[in-house]
Amino acid sequence: MKTTLIAITVAAAFGASALCALAAEPIQIIEPAVITEPAKVELGKKLFFEPRLSKSGFLSCNSCHNLSLGGVDAIPTSIGHDWQEGPINAPTVLNAKYMLAQFWDGRAADLQEQAAGPIENPKEMAMEHHIALKVLESIPQYQAEFKAIYGEQGISLSTVTDAIAVFEETLVTPNSRFDQYLAGDHDALSAEEKAGYALFKANACSACHNGPAVGGTSYQKMGLVQPFVTDNPAQGRIDVTGKESDRNVFKVPTLRNIELTYPYFHDGSVWDLTEAVKVMQQVQLGLPLSDEEAGKIAAFLKTLTGEQPQITLPILPPSTAETPRPQPFGQ
Amino acid sequence: MKTTLIAITVAAAFGASALCALAAEPIQIIEPAVITEPAKVELGKKLFFEPRLSKSGFLSCNSCHNLSLGGVDAIPTSIGHDWQEGPINAPTVLNAKYMLAQFWDGRAADLQEQAAGPIENPKEMAMEHHIALKVLESIPQYQAEFKAIYGEQGISLSTVTDAIAVFEETLVTPNSRFDQYLAGDHDALSAEEKAGYALFKANACSACHNGPAVGGTSYQKMGLVQPFVTDNPAQGRIDVTGKESDRNVFKVPTLRNIELTYPYFHDGSVWDLTEAVKVMQQVQLGLPLSDEEAGKIAAFLKTLTGEQPQITLPILPPSTAETPRPQPFGQ
Repeated sequence: MKTTLIAITVAAAFGASALCALAAEPIQIIEPAVITEPAKVELGKKLFFEPRLSKSGFLSCNSCHNLSLGGVDAIPTSIGHDWQEGPINAPTVLNAKYMLAQFWDGRAADLQEQAAGPIENPKEMAMEHHIALKVLESIPQYQAEFKAIYGEQGISLSTVTDAIAVFEETLVTPNSRFDQYLAGDHDALSAEEKAGYALFKANACSACHNGPAVGGTSYQKMGLVQPFVTDNPAQGRIDVTGKESDRNVFKVPTLRNIELTYPYFHDGSVWDLTEAVKVMQQVQLGLPLSDEEAGKIAAFLKTLTGEQPQITLPILPPSTAETPRPQPFGQ
Repeated sequence: MKTTLIAITVAAAFGASALCALAAEPIQIIEPAVITEPAKVELGKKLFFEPRLSKSGFLSCNSCHNLSLGGVDAIPTSIGHDWQEGPINAPTVLNAKYMLAQFWDGRAADLQEQAAGPIENPKEMAMEHHIALKVLESIPQYQAEFKAIYGEQGISLSTVTDAIAVFEETLVTPNSRFDQYLAGDHDALSAEEKAGYALFKANACSACHNGPAVGGTSYQKMGLVQPFVTDNPAQGRIDVTGKESDRNVFKVPTLRNIELTYPYFHDGSVWDLTEAVKVMQQVQLGLPLSDEEAGKIAAFLKTLTGEQPQITLPILPPSTAETPRPQPFGQ
């Protein structure tokens, strides 16, 4: 009788559809990549690994979104041109297509818009876009590939970033043990991992970390009930919206492959996954979590490690006499 | 009659066997890699791409010996820890197994000895060996792989560098058009390329650039008859032998894949292959070469580009709580 009353009260408060959603799983299966434009994917892969898109000739997208390391650089903040210290922890490129927007503050609408940023950012690849385009135009093999794929459009910032984005859309990590569990294989998780998943839902982690990427579906304040103490200067989404209410508001990061994408948070301050779970519980919910409970949630989170993209290293076409030369030092 | 006399005179001067050698081809075919220890090659590949062998956690063997770029970094001198400027142009790792020794000055006897150098060099990866070994020991997957391959030896500088060397031995580039020509396909080269090869031999380039790697079989003075003007401080083999006669003496570099391994010479000062040919002719033989002749030799040299190794990017196992953390900045 009491239970029924509570259920009715909850249904009245949230609406019947919300109640159904609560009953469903908050995480959806990651589907394998379906490649419809293989030539464009191959071109985008070359560009992703292309150090000549940087001023130094040394840094590529893969430098900080290393596909050997879960799509990150596994250091607190990234190394840019001239070893400049980046302002924020590099988010993983894996499953990035599921994010509602790109960058921690969501300042790029999609992968294509994102791709243009680090190339020109003076603290990252430090390469003026028009010189990057000259590099590609000077290389006959790139000219031919762009012509074959983009026709009259040829080599432009738009086509370069489109190819990179189309490649990045293939960087998904299906068939994790958790996906197998969602697909009906109840033995895919251990008892501890299942208990961790139950805690993950009961403690409302899944209120923000949901969807196929277990994150990336909303912006949330870091330090919702207690301040998140950091010396990292990033202000979050206020830089995009100008709204004071968006201070310290960041895109919720994906928890897919979280086992690989340490150190954690936008400041890369926490290396241990169990500790990260405890910090989140504290600053977002104001509730302490026992080591045992945090360990169970961490055990569940490790089941989100999926099959990593199998990448055959591209062979990049040689420069020519017309290719603008890299400027690694002192220029 | 006159021809016969000259032939006898030459035979007397060089000896009959040398005359026979002159008649044979100075360049031998590159054979495809034969992999007898696939697990060791896979482990070595992981280590080759492993940035956690560097102090910063950012640099790996592949940073400067980039297998997307012909096994080099394609800049004059390399970028090391904290963006330090390296002292010399990075030699290609491709076909390095054919070199009589490693490094420009031959200070490492073989690939295994070479592999230890850049990890600990404070201007390169800047990682003390004992910490690099701790990193690997802290990661269960590495522990298991080393145990399976090396048994009791486990993880040591010797086994780490052995695995890297065994991987590097597979990095050969067979089946270039020139190899096809050597194998009997006379149509594999154009008339210009054949003329370039004839000039290459007639002008004695092949006196030093010979063997399967078209180099790497001897040490020679850079600037044999005219000084090679450079502001690069490298002194060459004198640093190894202490002999004044070894000043400016370097290992003859391979010309395999020379189309990809610009900029040229130990100082990386020349970007154009035709110009590099002319400089060599001038400083080694004291003879000017016409643009047309140099162009023909360059056309021949481009036929030495072989099939590049097909590398599936390794997926590196995650760090643990025991893994020494990278120190990218300010330490």
